[in-house]
Amino acid sequence: MIKTPAFLLEKTKDFLILDQSLLPDKKEFVKIKNPEDMTKAIKKLQVRGANLIGISAGFALAQYALTNPAQEDLNFWAKKLSKARPTARHLSLAVDRIMSKKNPEDKWLEAVKIFEEDQKLCEKLAQNGKDLISSKENILTYCNTGSLATGGIGTALGVIRQAFYDKKNIHVYVPETRPLDQGSRLTFWELSEEKIPCTLLCDNMLAELISNQKIGKAFVGADRISQNGDTANKIGTYSLAILCHHFQIPFYVVAPSSTIDKSLPTGESIKIEQRNPLEVSNYWGGKEASIRNPAFDVTPRKLITGIITEKGIL
Amino acid sequence: MIKTPAFLLEKTKDFLILDQSLLPDKKEFVKIKNPEDMTKAIKKLQVRGANLIGISAGFALAQYALTNPAQEDLNFWAKKLSKARPTARHLSLAVDRIMSKKNPEDKWLEAVKIFEEDQKLCEKLAQNGKDLISSKENILTYCNTGSLATGGIGTALGVIRQAFYDKKNIHVYVPETRPLDQGSRLTFWELSEEKIPCTLLCDNMLAELISNQKIGKAFVGADRISQNGDTANKIGTYSLAILCHHFQIPFYVVAPSSTIDKSLPTGESIKIEQRNPLEVSNYWGGKEASIRNPAFDVTPRKLITGIITEKGIL
Repeated sequence: MIKTPAFLLEKTKDFLILDQSLLPDKKEFVKIKNPEDMTKAIKKLQVRGANLIGISAGFALAQYALTNPAQEDLNFWAKKLSKARPTARHLSLAVDRIMSKKNPEDKWLEAVKIFEEDQKLCEKLAQNGKDLISSKENILTYCNTGSLATGGIGTALGVIRQAFYDKKNIHVYVPETRPLDQGSRLTFWELSEEKIPCTLLCDNMLAELISNQKIGKAFVGADRISQNGDTANKIGTYSLAILCHHFQIPFYVVAPSSTIDKSLPTGESIKIEQRNPLEVSNYWGGKEASIRNPAFDVTPRKLITGIITEKGIL
Repeated sequence: MIKTPAFLLEKTKDFLILDQSLLPDKKEFVKIKNPEDMTKAIKKLQVRGANLIGISAGFALAQYALTNPAQEDLNFWAKKLSKARPTARHLSLAVDRIMSKKNPEDKWLEAVKIFEEDQKLCEKLAQNGKDLISSKENILTYCNTGSLATGGIGTALGVIRQAFYDKKNIHVYVPETRPLDQGSRLTFWELSEEKIPCTLLCDNMLAELISNQKIGKAFVGADRISQNGDTANKIGTYSLAILCHHFQIPFYVVAPSSTIDKSLPTGESIKIEQRNPLEVSNYWGGKEASIRNPAFDVTPRKLITGIITEKGIL
């Protein structure tokens, strides 16, 4: 049995994922019976976070392969899963790895390997980043990059968590991350569950916060990084990076090196997912108003102090 | 009978205010029978916007005076109304003007005068600012500074509106303005009602918007301006000003000169209202979590391209 805060599964039984779209109001698991269920769950953000999406898609595809489907069905679902969301690099990478193995048993072992690698990656990222945080430091993070986004303790949130485990007296400031509130619903929930001191704020309170409260550093995750270091991450990351730059606060991206897509020279070539306007406003969405809803933005390399990967700090 | 989009009243009848906390879902008027009702309505943001609060408090106090209350009751309610919200300068100024008049009839005339002055001020602000907007320009605004915030066509939104009336082919970008969504609920509603082209976005999408869409200028309102030009306005204004500075977009404050408080040398002395954390998150608010909720922030003078008043552009 494989168990994390985000999911629960056995090799040939139903895959149970925590429905993150209902948090923090309800803690409910959803049964994933086949790749179609997983594709829907990814689109509906019931499972989310670049790493966790890759791991979950890998497991769903490997479980499906174990049922001995026709090769064309397997190919069909591999493609569907791969395209469930366009921006994060992890999803298609995981699907490609599963499909590169010939027999179903090897596909399953590959899915387990993707998961275990991610767990270890998180540990390594945390070790590589934790010394950047000093005792009594106020830390900013953004969106959710914790156990609800990875197979382990998280990427950016893993670094922060490790500093807390090391008995550093930190305080974490969490912007709500509109329109889907991954900050207030997920990160603030993860931190509160572990009693890591934290304060919630709206995304538009960042300049006020930084000008009135000493903030030491910001740590965020990444969905895709171009060759030159431009970083696609949750919408709002770019604004945060500009504010950190303005107030001279170090701004770190924490992500496995596999997030770096060498086929993309700069951030301009990163494909950005546009999501349903109803996520921004139910009221106006029904009235055909013009509403902007990109899921990500691209932060230029020059605003990033360092990219923390499993190989060190770039 | 005095009638604006925001209220409806006759000298000695109930004062009807549009309950802005219910917009855009419901368009409902609330009866204000006495200064106590008005104090509550101001605190609950049923009536809001620096100018409109001053006008409304003035009318409520003058109507009360016409009922010949004891002087100590009148003083009591003048004080209560004056302190219903602390940041905007207009509220206490209006109350002081009403109380400076001896007899009830003069108090009523003074309240009417405050209202009419504001209408004319809005016209003057619009005339002074409109030439800054060129044809086919994309404009950013913030919070609500229109007919739901003033006695007339608005301050920042009045300037924008005037450019549209002058047949300039503008497009207005409206951030939702968390946590109370004055942008998505009120400004987007006002613009949509008049079919002024506009797009709604989340507050954290501003860097993405500006980097992908040519934005000509930003116009915002003000609640209080210190002698050196530091400007208190809706939380998020400071972040917006930093982003405009970063992307070299002119950033204008539009406000009557009475907003300038000469008793305050710099923005540091401006008192900032902290509001109920439940406004940010119902879920966490009930759980005694640490939640930040300042209603305003202070934008330093150096980030402001110009302050448009009825006297011209400072």
